[in-house]
Amino acid sequence: MPDLVGLPEVERAAERLAGVAVRTPLVPFPGDGGLLVKPESLQPVGAFKLRGAYNAISRLGRRERERGVVTHSSGNHAQAVAWTARALGIPAVLVMPHTTPAVKVDACIALGAEIVYVDPVARLETAERLAAAHGLALIPPFDDPDVIAGQGTVGLEIVRDRPDADVVLVPVSGGGLIAGVAAAVKALRPEAKVIGVEPELAADARESLRLGHPVTWPAEETGRTIADALRVQRVGDLPFAHMRAHVDGIVTVTEDEIRLAMRRLARDARLIAEPGGATATAAYLFRKKELPPGRTYVAVLSGGNVDPALFQEVLR
Amino acid sequence: MPDLVGLPEVERAAERLAGVAVRTPLVPFPGDGGLLVKPESLQPVGAFKLRGAYNAISRLGRRERERGVVTHSSGNHAQAVAWTARALGIPAVLVMPHTTPAVKVDACIALGAEIVYVDPVARLETAERLAAAHGLALIPPFDDPDVIAGQGTVGLEIVRDRPDADVVLVPVSGGGLIAGVAAAVKALRPEAKVIGVEPELAADARESLRLGHPVTWPAEETGRTIADALRVQRVGDLPFAHMRAHVDGIVTVTEDEIRLAMRRLARDARLIAEPGGATATAAYLFRKKELPPGRTYVAVLSGGNVDPALFQEVLR
Repeated sequence: MPDLVGLPEVERAAERLAGVAVRTPLVPFPGDGGLLVKPESLQPVGAFKLRGAYNAISRLGRRERERGVVTHSSGNHAQAVAWTARALGIPAVLVMPHTTPAVKVDACIALGAEIVYVDPVARLETAERLAAAHGLALIPPFDDPDVIAGQGTVGLEIVRDRPDADVVLVPVSGGGLIAGVAAAVKALRPEAKVIGVEPELAADARESLRLGHPVTWPAEETGRTIADALRVQRVGDLPFAHMRAHVDGIVTVTEDEIRLAMRRLARDARLIAEPGGATATAAYLFRKKELPPGRTYVAVLSGGNVDPALFQEVLR
Repeated sequence: MPDLVGLPEVERAAERLAGVAVRTPLVPFPGDGGLLVKPESLQPVGAFKLRGAYNAISRLGRRERERGVVTHSSGNHAQAVAWTARALGIPAVLVMPHTTPAVKVDACIALGAEIVYVDPVARLETAERLAAAHGLALIPPFDDPDVIAGQGTVGLEIVRDRPDADVVLVPVSGGGLIAGVAAAVKALRPEAKVIGVEPELAADARESLRLGHPVTWPAEETGRTIADALRVQRVGDLPFAHMRAHVDGIVTVTEDEIRLAMRRLARDARLIAEPGGATATAAYLFRKKELPPGRTYVAVLSGGNVDPALFQEVLR
């Protein structure tokens, strides 16, 4: 059993992130009054990923910073590393699957990072090879205690803003976000439930929790969901350990439910969500019977980097 | 010279609004790093108007509350009164011009208010008649010290979040928002500049400041701008007194600049703005040479209740 991230690490991450990450509010979703949305789409890179990347990179020493950082990501973590590297004056290399939406690649190029395109299955291996060859610090997208502690600041803010939160809904991909959020929420309010949300087409985390160990779904399967940020085929080992300890369940949503949630978030709450970012809201809107009972639900809107063509399509 | 709203009134409004209005963050706009956007689109009614309406209505006594409230508005203030009335269990009558976008009317009906449609020029007279006939408390959209103090909490939050703000850009319609914001900003940071922003097609406030008294623009003229929230034909007397005392200038933007700002806010900052709400960002993006110099600019995104068809049009 690995050491789990605890509240003190999350609180220290919050101190490092003060003045860097946006202190996102809880936005009431119109309707029955039970849902609050935490719009991480308002972070500088359009996603919560900035929190973990910045927390990890800001802990590097002077020599490590001079050599630079490398990471592998389908987009939002890559943008977060690129943004942080530029903010701290550090060179950054990003290993990206060639399936990454153009909007995310363009954003990384604009931030001055060097991009290496690879086949999705080769991304970890390529990043490790580059790290070894050039002495770069590898900043993992989720399987890392500093990254998890940074993402956990989302949970810290939720409970500080609403100490009465009953159910916290969190999109799951590699598991870094829900690991950190659950660690913070359960430390501060053990009676609150933390529920993961996945697309039905990429429900590897649900299967993993059922079986008691991380399982891998083929890229051909997870690649079918429009939620490109949630196509990671296997949750990380360290995130999984947190999920087993803290997470109360996983709910899945359909592709249509994701599209409808994106539309409702835009029309009713004036928030722009990418498909993966809309899954938690979709779970509240369409799967409430599968959720634990409560009065106050919080859905983490994890990111807003949606391809403009897809966004216009869901609005029509 | 009427009494102007001061910092103590704004601070008391902030206390009343705690836990009611969303504490909106300052969202960095991607680019040169100089612009922060305050997204009042995230308020429960999609606009800053909730602040002033709630502050005014929450000061009514028990008997006044029982009789109910009435107001006249092109939409966002009406929604704010309807939302507050429902939250406090008070009947509400809304006098709305028949030119109000359907999206705003629908939202008010959903909040349980009674709607009275009138010709735009008859709205004030109708509201006053209904107030007298039924003993309703008239909640003015801008020409009222409690409303101005409530809107001023936007300025209070800006300076508390960024005590280094140099220039604050505020859309101007009836003038309640800029009056309150300027009162708060100038009290806390006298060296900061407060600049109003209007569509060229509804620049009555700029002309009023030049001439030294409020002037009225014909409805046929102000009605031409897509910024429906900024079509008010004349700034209020009390807002105007605040503008003369505190506001450093007015900048105008074109219809194309408003559309482009809406598009950039959605694509680059993941924020949904209605046309009037995008004017302050448009002034930074396209009229920077006309603005006072500074390092840190704040644009108030005053509302996000955009007609879905128009929003899709500007995204294309």
